[in-house]
Amino acid sequence: MTSTVMRAALLREFGAPLEVAEVELQAPQAGEVRVAVAASGVCGSDLKALDGKSPVVSHLPCVLGHESAGVVAEVGPGVASVRPGDHVVIAMNGPCGRCRDCARGRAHLCSGPARLAAIMGTMPDGGTRLSTGGRVVRPYIGIGSFAEQVVVHEAMCVKVAADAPLDLLALTACAVVTGVGAVLNTARVEPGASVLVVGCGGVGLNVVQGAALAGATTIIAADAVDAKLKLAEEFGATHTLPAGDLPRRVGEIVRGGVDYAFDVTGAPEVLPEAFAATRRGGTTVMVGSPAAGAELRVPAGELFASRRLMGTQGGDAVPARDLPLLVDLYRRGRLNLAGLVSERVPLEKVNEAVAHVRAGAVARSVIVFD
Amino acid sequence: MTSTVMRAALLREFGAPLEVAEVELQAPQAGEVRVAVAASGVCGSDLKALDGKSPVVSHLPCVLGHESAGVVAEVGPGVASVRPGDHVVIAMNGPCGRCRDCARGRAHLCSGPARLAAIMGTMPDGGTRLSTGGRVVRPYIGIGSFAEQVVVHEAMCVKVAADAPLDLLALTACAVVTGVGAVLNTARVEPGASVLVVGCGGVGLNVVQGAALAGATTIIAADAVDAKLKLAEEFGATHTLPAGDLPRRVGEIVRGGVDYAFDVTGAPEVLPEAFAATRRGGTTVMVGSPAAGAELRVPAGELFASRRLMGTQGGDAVPARDLPLLVDLYRRGRLNLAGLVSERVPLEKVNEAVAHVRAGAVARSVIVFD
Repeated sequence: MTSTVMRAALLREFGAPLEVAEVELQAPQAGEVRVAVAASGVCGSDLKALDGKSPVVSHLPCVLGHESAGVVAEVGPGVASVRPGDHVVIAMNGPCGRCRDCARGRAHLCSGPARLAAIMGTMPDGGTRLSTGGRVVRPYIGIGSFAEQVVVHEAMCVKVAADAPLDLLALTACAVVTGVGAVLNTARVEPGASVLVVGCGGVGLNVVQGAALAGATTIIAADAVDAKLKLAEEFGATHTLPAGDLPRRVGEIVRGGVDYAFDVTGAPEVLPEAFAATRRGGTTVMVGSPAAGAELRVPAGELFASRRLMGTQGGDAVPARDLPLLVDLYRRGRLNLAGLVSERVPLEKVNEAVAHVRAGAVARSVIVFD
Repeated sequence: MTSTVMRAALLREFGAPLEVAEVELQAPQAGEVRVAVAASGVCGSDLKALDGKSPVVSHLPCVLGHESAGVVAEVGPGVASVRPGDHVVIAMNGPCGRCRDCARGRAHLCSGPARLAAIMGTMPDGGTRLSTGGRVVRPYIGIGSFAEQVVVHEAMCVKVAADAPLDLLALTACAVVTGVGAVLNTARVEPGASVLVVGCGGVGLNVVQGAALAGATTIIAADAVDAKLKLAEEFGATHTLPAGDLPRRVGEIVRGGVDYAFDVTGAPEVLPEAFAATRRGGTTVMVGSPAAGAELRVPAGELFASRRLMGTQGGDAVPARDLPLLVDLYRRGRLNLAGLVSERVPLEKVNEAVAHVRAGAVARSVIVFD
């Protein structure tokens, strides 16, 4: 095959509805893989890009979608780690394995040329494998999974067990690895720890279940929406709190404050509250992405008391390490994926799914393909 | 001995000169040790307390001084780890060994009653072993080493080799352990790392030599004072920079920014500059104590890029682990202590030493006793 035509949801104008249209997809080149997408979650980051607020999406048209899984359809020259028929989760980043960060065990910081190009929606040659009517189309962060097929770098394809449902495994690529990774990779929560999670949407619920996996014995979930708190309890929360006045309310549950706090809201006024709810020596992780230009303000004296503030991008995930682990945990019944899915819709209804996510629907809307 | 009279420098009024006077010292009670002070460094924290700006010094009179070493003169009932004649460094904190933090290997966060009392300048019984003319005198953070003798908790006495000069070992208690500890304990700098140190006074120089000990291969020292930069080079700095415009200047030395930045100034406007000079995934440590009420402001998007901000109090030191290590490194010629000493003065000249530190003298003024 040299090129194929498929359906994809195109973002032609920021803020406008996505348009499901036929798009031309070139064959995978050296080191690239074509994947038939089975399912793609709709995430808040897609909406941010849709609204023109993502620093990495400037070129239109663009295909959004970055939380997906599927079946390998074709591999380019030199691809050795997957072959047609393999089930894969498409990772949000594909570490090069050769740069200094990869070499020192921090592959989540990889700055190899393929990764940097993918972030901006291209291949390292500056082009893409997508076009419509002769115009270049860019896939969001090098994925663009609101489409029947994608061509991605081999490093972004993580082969997983074929006996698990791909519509659930898709969620591991973003919501799950971001939440669980923030706990296991970034904060490194240990057994017996006390944890606060502010914001219990798709990612926040995974911070909750990540904390439970890590052995945290006090897991306080905070959210303004009651239904999300109920869900948080199903994912392992031991206590729930409404939004606001967190340091005082948390202090009534854990005297002196929690060991770890996770802000999954991205709201600049929430992180300082989460921070103030940690004890001396405590760690606060910013999981939710902040608005461009947002400033973070915390009392310097509180930081000085051996507290820590950490950012995490996508749970500081190393796909080949973390995604098979998550899939394995799911298969052993230790990771709740089914409970994250609010609805399944076909690609034609992508704008409905977007509207549901925008309205703050509980957990995830997932686009599924035949 | 039930009590003795000795000389100490009394702070009777905030902002006024210290007054060298005779003070009565009670014998050590259970778990306490009387130490004949050999030397005590003068630190910026002493000046902050002198000026009435320390949150832990409200009761006067007070004896300042917290960076000291000496010889055990007498032990109270039950003391087993030291005996008269032992050389000891007097640690800034004495972990209880029994609280949850001590039990989980984070003894620097110890919240045992003896430690909390010491911070406020008393023994757990609420009293002190110091008085003058019948009035209670409080020793600064439970030490008060601007005095010929001190009575401290056993946990604050760390026995060290007797073949090293006590006037140099005194510096390990604060300046050295804070600087080296910020590198080894807080940031955990690894071989090959790039490091920025802003502020090259007594503590900053020890961040520099801590980075060298950790195997950092690029160590950039920044300070407004040329003489301090010269000294920083002696302690291992590979590059020096004047104050200001740090992100750009650092970027010219290490493209993309450094792995680790240490702000040793305590100035709220400096930390964001140091933070902005770190690369994606980089760590910034606040080593200098901020003014009361100071607010820290950083761009949220920079933190989100997997950056980290960490506070450290006294290098997150665990005295029984860290002080013998530092003394051992000194004895093997791997730690420069002599170069930290600007002057040695007798107790009578304590106000001169204070004036020199206030004027921003290079490194440390040390009060020595016969």
